[in-house]
Amino acid sequence: MSSNGFHIPLEKIEEARERIAPYTRRTPMLPPPLVHRDIPQRLHLKLENLQVSGSFKARGVFNTLLQLDPEQRSRGAVTASGGNHGLALAYAASRLGMPATVYLPARASEDRVARIARYGARVIKHGDAWDDANAKALEHAANENLAYVPAFDGASVVEGQGTLGLEMIDDLPEIDCVLIAVGGGGLIAGVSAAIRQKKPDVTIIGVEPVGASSMHKSITAGHRVGMQQVRTIADTLSPKSVSDLTYGVTSQYCDRVHLIDDRQMVQAMRWLWAECNQLVEPAGAAVIAALLDGGLDIGKYTAPTAIICGGNAAAESVFTAYQQAADMLSGIN
Amino acid sequence: MSSNGFHIPLEKIEEARERIAPYTRRTPMLPPPLVHRDIPQRLHLKLENLQVSGSFKARGVFNTLLQLDPEQRSRGAVTASGGNHGLALAYAASRLGMPATVYLPARASEDRVARIARYGARVIKHGDAWDDANAKALEHAANENLAYVPAFDGASVVEGQGTLGLEMIDDLPEIDCVLIAVGGGGLIAGVSAAIRQKKPDVTIIGVEPVGASSMHKSITAGHRVGMQQVRTIADTLSPKSVSDLTYGVTSQYCDRVHLIDDRQMVQAMRWLWAECNQLVEPAGAAVIAALLDGGLDIGKYTAPTAIICGGNAAAESVFTAYQQAADMLSGIN
Repeated sequence: MSSNGFHIPLEKIEEARERIAPYTRRTPMLPPPLVHRDIPQRLHLKLENLQVSGSFKARGVFNTLLQLDPEQRSRGAVTASGGNHGLALAYAASRLGMPATVYLPARASEDRVARIARYGARVIKHGDAWDDANAKALEHAANENLAYVPAFDGASVVEGQGTLGLEMIDDLPEIDCVLIAVGGGGLIAGVSAAIRQKKPDVTIIGVEPVGASSMHKSITAGHRVGMQQVRTIADTLSPKSVSDLTYGVTSQYCDRVHLIDDRQMVQAMRWLWAECNQLVEPAGAAVIAALLDGGLDIGKYTAPTAIICGGNAAAESVFTAYQQAADMLSGIN
Repeated sequence: MSSNGFHIPLEKIEEARERIAPYTRRTPMLPPPLVHRDIPQRLHLKLENLQVSGSFKARGVFNTLLQLDPEQRSRGAVTASGGNHGLALAYAASRLGMPATVYLPARASEDRVARIARYGARVIKHGDAWDDANAKALEHAANENLAYVPAFDGASVVEGQGTLGLEMIDDLPEIDCVLIAVGGGGLIAGVSAAIRQKKPDVTIIGVEPVGASSMHKSITAGHRVGMQQVRTIADTLSPKSVSDLTYGVTSQYCDRVHLIDDRQMVQAMRWLWAECNQLVEPAGAAVIAALLDGGLDIGKYTAPTAIICGGNAAAESVFTAYQQAADMLSGIN
């Protein structure tokens, strides 16, 4: 048990790993060599953008839904999401044959809405920020007695995300530093709890957008601090505040939180595309953004690993352009 | 030795594998489960779009350049390419510290030109089709006594591509069917030679655009047949003709060639994005296009594998849109 009362036991993460295994992917580490020469050649990339539903969120969602009793399952589940958590819930509910409702902030991109709707979930847009949509989702769940699946503020969700940490130790037993993007803090809480309970000497570095930096502010202040307003293109990293749980766990294990800005994330998206043809959303590139232009120095580690946490970029423009080219060519055939 | 005189010995492919290992990636198979339910759930995807330089072409190029003598290396190499082979040559030459010149057809996309130039290669646009650019590259190489690296019509290139076949057998020893896109035929010649010499019962299926179907026509006719004109959005699958070598080897091992059209390739690009967040070029999605809408039936195989051969899609529109969003948000910060 930890000093501040928040604890994610290793056994729970190990149970989660077994529970979700039939439904999720053991994602690959990018095999060497690196093409770029501008970052340490020992860097490993855990390509979690290849996870089902396109992000690590599927881990926590499956771990939660698979623990519902049959009656709860048949009634269905509700959540609120900046995008990836909602997509994971929609996919998992479809896979398990459950109804699902996803609340999104009004500004959520059409690309995300379409992806969620494709899995048969009901999508409701509400409010300006994730926090507004989440309040409505909680109300909906209470009124209709449905299971509410938290985006990050729940032990079963954090334990599910922690399975990624166990996998990384198996992938790379000599791992000595992990870079993890921070939104609501579910990923860093779960992964750092998993890794540090098995390998206490691994350095854990969080990476957070400067315009949505609740974890950085909280760790600096020594208590949870929210923001009045968030401003970043990384819509999946933008709740106004981390939770007591995610802050409480992360503050025990995380060595530091490094801040990045939106332009660095776009530069890092281009870097990943040139490195290994992975098109990812801004949040998925955040850990790379921290390393470019000499921002964060990881030169002293022998097996540092960056988690590419999500890939759901708005890519429709690419398909539309190829579709037009195909239509044009076939029209003159 | 084969009946028609063309043969790629297994030992040569094994030597190539050892030779190129420090410079190329052992690319991952997509881990289960599949998200889609519209194709056989036993299908494996070999994600060769994660190869250095974004396609399988790096294998053949490294295998060729690494066999040049020091004097040839210092003079440099020349090639002609629809895109991916040129990119592979530019990357490999940069990695090995050699000068490189790449001829491209005039209609090559700016995206491809920029990628090749980024590795320091000289880019020259010439002619309407790959074949025109190639004639010029051969002339250049002869005049200046430079090493010419064929895009597909050379034993060292085919042997290099064959290393992908050896890897797939190691990845999945029970493999019993392989789907391979066909352009100039270097990939299918190398992979089918590798696999069938080790596992004679594996079914080899080529997939070719109907608008650039030289291999299909050749196998049907029983001798090499070129096309007057090619028409497909899959610019990396569009030479006017396969070569005597690639036809000669492929005709011994390939069970059938399945034809697909451009619209099916775009549909398959969307499928791959939804399945595992892999954005690939039309050629990389060709093998999936063959399976959608019940086109090609692989239901009888227990471990069928599709090679996702290249990922170099024109993705600039995505980065530009995110860049604009970042600029806008930071401007009002």
